[in-house]
Amino acid sequence: MQENQFAVVAKRGDRVCDLSTPRPIIDEDRLAANIARCQAYMDEHGLNFRPHIKTHKIPALAAEQVAAGAKGINCQKISEAEVFAAAGFQDILITFNILGAQKLERLAALNDRISDLKVVADSIVTVDGLSEYFALRRPLAVLVECDTGGGRCGVQTPEEAKALAQRIQAAPGLSFAGLLNYPKPAAAEAVQAFLVNTLGLLEQESIACPIVSNGGTPSLFDAHLVTAATEHRAGTYIYNDRSMVRAGHCDEADCAMHVLATVVSRPTADRAVIDAGSKALTSDLLGFADFGTVVGYPDAVITGLSEEHGVIDLSKCGDHRPQIGDKVRIIPNHTCVVSNLFDTMVFHRDGVVTRVENVAARGLVW
Amino acid sequence: MQENQFAVVAKRGDRVCDLSTPRPIIDEDRLAANIARCQAYMDEHGLNFRPHIKTHKIPALAAEQVAAGAKGINCQKISEAEVFAAAGFQDILITFNILGAQKLERLAALNDRISDLKVVADSIVTVDGLSEYFALRRPLAVLVECDTGGGRCGVQTPEEAKALAQRIQAAPGLSFAGLLNYPKPAAAEAVQAFLVNTLGLLEQESIACPIVSNGGTPSLFDAHLVTAATEHRAGTYIYNDRSMVRAGHCDEADCAMHVLATVVSRPTADRAVIDAGSKALTSDLLGFADFGTVVGYPDAVITGLSEEHGVIDLSKCGDHRPQIGDKVRIIPNHTCVVSNLFDTMVFHRDGVVTRVENVAARGLVW
Repeated sequence: MQENQFAVVAKRGDRVCDLSTPRPIIDEDRLAANIARCQAYMDEHGLNFRPHIKTHKIPALAAEQVAAGAKGINCQKISEAEVFAAAGFQDILITFNILGAQKLERLAALNDRISDLKVVADSIVTVDGLSEYFALRRPLAVLVECDTGGGRCGVQTPEEAKALAQRIQAAPGLSFAGLLNYPKPAAAEAVQAFLVNTLGLLEQESIACPIVSNGGTPSLFDAHLVTAATEHRAGTYIYNDRSMVRAGHCDEADCAMHVLATVVSRPTADRAVIDAGSKALTSDLLGFADFGTVVGYPDAVITGLSEEHGVIDLSKCGDHRPQIGDKVRIIPNHTCVVSNLFDTMVFHRDGVVTRVENVAARGLVW
Repeated sequence: MQENQFAVVAKRGDRVCDLSTPRPIIDEDRLAANIARCQAYMDEHGLNFRPHIKTHKIPALAAEQVAAGAKGINCQKISEAEVFAAAGFQDILITFNILGAQKLERLAALNDRISDLKVVADSIVTVDGLSEYFALRRPLAVLVECDTGGGRCGVQTPEEAKALAQRIQAAPGLSFAGLLNYPKPAAAEAVQAFLVNTLGLLEQESIACPIVSNGGTPSLFDAHLVTAATEHRAGTYIYNDRSMVRAGHCDEADCAMHVLATVVSRPTADRAVIDAGSKALTSDLLGFADFGTVVGYPDAVITGLSEEHGVIDLSKCGDHRPQIGDKVRIIPNHTCVVSNLFDTMVFHRDGVVTRVENVAARGLVW
């Protein structure tokens, strides 16, 4: 790890309040509770659960998710899947259209290494590209990505989904494995309708559809409303963040990740500056007007970030204001992008470091 | 480098159009022109120039900046300074209030290794913390950071600046090295007034002020208007970006960094999805409503980013629209945060790779 060239981040037994800042830290008890809570919900409703590893990028955490009952894992990039395959995971779904000779070559090599690799496609171009590569190899399982209202990738109608499923079924080297969608939050009815209609069309053609994969942490606890789904995917739930609190998915106390920062300046009575900027918290707003929650200072507002500075407006804080040198904890707007900035992640229980994990799938190409 | 565990990014002679995406690439000729243009301006106006390495975090590029005439370099973190000191740089200014025993210990070790280390302070707490550590060591040069309107760190008035300079001068282990500010753009008059007033107060007390360090790429070509300054600091100018084009600092053709991406989906006639999301472009808006310029598609709008997807609205594009599999180039809103996401940077001339540099100071703690 680059960062260890000049600095040891932390070691077991250190107090997190002594760590150099800025530094994201993960509360072990909250982490375990988040994993257990979500898996219990999925078990209760008979849904397979497939955690998305993009949030943490750490094989040891995925192992905890699988040990709790997750069926397999979800990756977003071939490189992520390679890291997790090397760590022993066999059931990996890559939810991305994979295009281009270099990536297809790597995908084929990966498909030879693990037993249950799956990808998605939403176009004939992607399907034909996959087929060209896999025609003379071990067959690849492909799901049709459906846009049920999320407005990102995906076929637009059940008819298109059926046609693409047929194309996959007929393509040398490919097998049709099911349907997948990434919904906008609170849209269970629309998702259900799209999936039910598509399943009806597939049934008319006698096309088996083993997997129906619904997704998203914001809609995680609505997953049981989508009875057409066989599985649910979610990533952020393992750490949780400010956007998940706002979505009603969890409480502030369920946020396992805090970003530890130091107040380095108090230029005015109403302004504090911390050493966590956009290179620690990222600029993800996700609809907020500010850049995170300052734990213990509910009226403090992180109004602006530059790369290594966060500017906090204290004007509504009354007399309780952090002083220069004080350490504060920030609940970030979005955990997944914070993970992506740090080569290592520090875990603690009651403020004492339990372990330091390599963020193994960070910074990978492909 | 982590990313080389499973993938070689590129090698000399590769065509950039063949690189796996997403991938930032740097045009060597534009890079050299940006370095030369800025240094020529500083030379013309008799200003020392101190490039901020946060933009690139690559010692080889700082060496090119110094070879062109830069007096020294500017770092934002101790860890960055450590990397550049190890690469042979001696004149390093860290523009950050450094607090806490761990960081002070590292700072003291660094001060023993290089000949000309300088830091800033904007409070008695910071000054006294530095003095406590340096009292029995090789003295440390400290500049007073002034808030001339930027609204981040810095003392608020010339009187405060004078008082802090006196405190530094009187503090065991410290020497007063000058004044520093990071202005808001287009505020040369206010900066000049603050600095002139402060210099007057220092002169009354017979306090020598060897350095007056003004900063910022947006105000780079206004630097000559601040005649009170002895040097100017700037980072972004070396790559340039969309925010610098908007600021009138440069033209689109001066942007040395493009982020190469692939169109992976065209779900509708008006929507394209690329494989560059917030983990490649970052969510930095810097006042824009969208996430970058798509080169060659002036009417395309990157309306949203998720972590690995960028959604592009093509509705105003007429018939010229990118197809699935096409590679596009994005000029990011902000280059400095893009650099911070990648472990290596690929350079090219006329589309042919010239070198791959390790982004040596990325991902460091402290």
